[in-house]
Amino acid sequence: MNGGSGKSSYANNSLLQQKVISLTKPVREEAIASMFLRTLPRRLAVADLGCSSGPNTFLVVSEVIKLVEKLCKELKHESPEYLVFMNDLPGNDFNNIFKSIGCFKEKLSNEIEGGIGPCYITGVPGSFYERIFPIRTLHFVHSSYSLQWLSQVPEGIENNKGNIYMAKTSPTNVMKAYYAQFERDFSLFLKCRAEELVEGGYMVLTFLGRRNDDPSGKECCYIWELLASALNDMVSEGMIKEEQMDTFNIPLYSPSASEVKSEILKEGSFSINRVEVSEVHWNAYNIASNSFDSECGLHKSLSDGGYSVTCTMRAVAEPLLVSHFGESFIDEIFDRYRKNITEAMSKEKTEFVNVSISMTRRA
Amino acid sequence: MNGGSGKSSYANNSLLQQKVISLTKPVREEAIASMFLRTLPRRLAVADLGCSSGPNTFLVVSEVIKLVEKLCKELKHESPEYLVFMNDLPGNDFNNIFKSIGCFKEKLSNEIEGGIGPCYITGVPGSFYERIFPIRTLHFVHSSYSLQWLSQVPEGIENNKGNIYMAKTSPTNVMKAYYAQFERDFSLFLKCRAEELVEGGYMVLTFLGRRNDDPSGKECCYIWELLASALNDMVSEGMIKEEQMDTFNIPLYSPSASEVKSEILKEGSFSINRVEVSEVHWNAYNIASNSFDSECGLHKSLSDGGYSVTCTMRAVAEPLLVSHFGESFIDEIFDRYRKNITEAMSKEKTEFVNVSISMTRRA
Repeated sequence: MNGGSGKSSYANNSLLQQKVISLTKPVREEAIASMFLRTLPRRLAVADLGCSSGPNTFLVVSEVIKLVEKLCKELKHESPEYLVFMNDLPGNDFNNIFKSIGCFKEKLSNEIEGGIGPCYITGVPGSFYERIFPIRTLHFVHSSYSLQWLSQVPEGIENNKGNIYMAKTSPTNVMKAYYAQFERDFSLFLKCRAEELVEGGYMVLTFLGRRNDDPSGKECCYIWELLASALNDMVSEGMIKEEQMDTFNIPLYSPSASEVKSEILKEGSFSINRVEVSEVHWNAYNIASNSFDSECGLHKSLSDGGYSVTCTMRAVAEPLLVSHFGESFIDEIFDRYRKNITEAMSKEKTEFVNVSISMTRRA
Repeated sequence: MNGGSGKSSYANNSLLQQKVISLTKPVREEAIASMFLRTLPRRLAVADLGCSSGPNTFLVVSEVIKLVEKLCKELKHESPEYLVFMNDLPGNDFNNIFKSIGCFKEKLSNEIEGGIGPCYITGVPGSFYERIFPIRTLHFVHSSYSLQWLSQVPEGIENNKGNIYMAKTSPTNVMKAYYAQFERDFSLFLKCRAEELVEGGYMVLTFLGRRNDDPSGKECCYIWELLASALNDMVSEGMIKEEQMDTFNIPLYSPSASEVKSEILKEGSFSINRVEVSEVHWNAYNIASNSFDSECGLHKSLSDGGYSVTCTMRAVAEPLLVSHFGESFIDEIFDRYRKNITEAMSKEKTEFVNVSISMTRRA
């Protein structure tokens, strides 16, 4: 993610992610209500994994607290103490989150008649592919649009030449290596969370995923093929070395609902309550917000949906590209990427697929 | 505090505070050992309040873990899970702390044979004059050189003209207002911590304090009188408006051991185990470290102890001065302050007094 609050920052280019959080609200609401009624904790511990830093950071926490307060009123039950754990990698901009806590709490208290229970918000830096919480302490775990990121680029995919992700032209071993890395990472994630959740605790995860069985299908790979195409053009023109291009791969896997379910069943600690698959248009956020400031260091054209989509992708992928290719051609890369995205959007239906799953920690 | 890692930053000018932490180690060690043997927790929760961000941040946490691991070995007791809460105001540079966690844990694991128990480090932004932790969750609370800072400048001290803190020439109401603010703040602090600590939990606090009964005595006020003198000279020369000077006061109170004890007894939730009063020379850190980079944006003179003392004071007090007087004369203020400090140090014994107190949460 691009940090800070500048034009290309994630904080200013995360309306797509916001749209996804809003789309998946029904899955969370069902889970939160069941969790609360089942556990009725005096001290309710909620963790948002991959919380990022920006306008979306407190959306889900706010939803949890509002719903629990509503349930408490209906049940004439005392409000719990809220323990809120905001997790992301240590490089995330936690300072920015912490500075906005006062404002978040004030807004929340004003919105809820009678105020809310005591709410303790802490920052938990670390990879969710490791243990990051003590044993049996969490009641509700949430993660949206983070778990498709792998812990690393799969090993042994040096022959994925001309591609930066799985693609139609990727050799079979590349497809296998990506899937194996997903299996390893996600099963480790489940094992860690199973230790951290209390019995009867709930977890709702949303992946950038796919509907199709084919992991190299257009549905999930097209957006990266358009970036690969921009990079390949720059290789042809001598701006990027072929060797550099060949060694660049994105550490991501967009799983299908059945792949996600299969890992959960294999791991065995969770029972699955509900699986939902939904779509958002690549450009969903332009519809979502007219006030969106779309300046992000690229050629500006407000009528150009491709421009906004590129901003979203840039906020997410720029650090990966910079650390591999350096700073010098980064604007050029995203300018070409934008052209490819715009062209693609003019020709066909371009959507991201969201796979959401709600599960309960078994006794 | 000055944030970041620049020349005038707290991170680069906190060797005095390090010296104090090192001086007060025996008080903590006794408390940690008693706490652990008394509570033998499977999950040990430690909070460092006013942890700042810099080389001192993990000193005490590291001490706690080393000692507990040693006790576990001696007792053939399994290592606990460590829950470490790093607290400071929301404006503190938590990003910097979080980036150094990996390195801290690695170092600690290497230093302790057989490694350490699982250690979960979180950031807790907020004022310690409010509740910042859930009920009955902490085993050991520590705070060093933070609690002398009041929650605000006392009200009703508009007549403290020509001074910026308590001084010999301060009217009686000013002295009373400062002490009343200390009483209010510290009793609130104790009330909050009494709710957060488990029964038998320990707390060790170190104040920048004083030995003398007189709160306007030279011992604790001289360092601020030298700053006031610099500001008054600038008023005479027309660089600072008299009105600006008259409305500036430092939100600080350096208590005596008996004032600290008296508040603890009044609040009633704690039994006092030990009180220690110690001194550090204003320039203790120059002796403590030869590698200290003393460039901090002032005229440089390595042989000039006043220069280093000014760096320490600048790292702590600059934001207060900037928010009141603006940026324009800030270098001038500290240049004059340095001259005053150097002169004072050449003429007399200049020491800070540390008041440390160890207490236990009663059943």
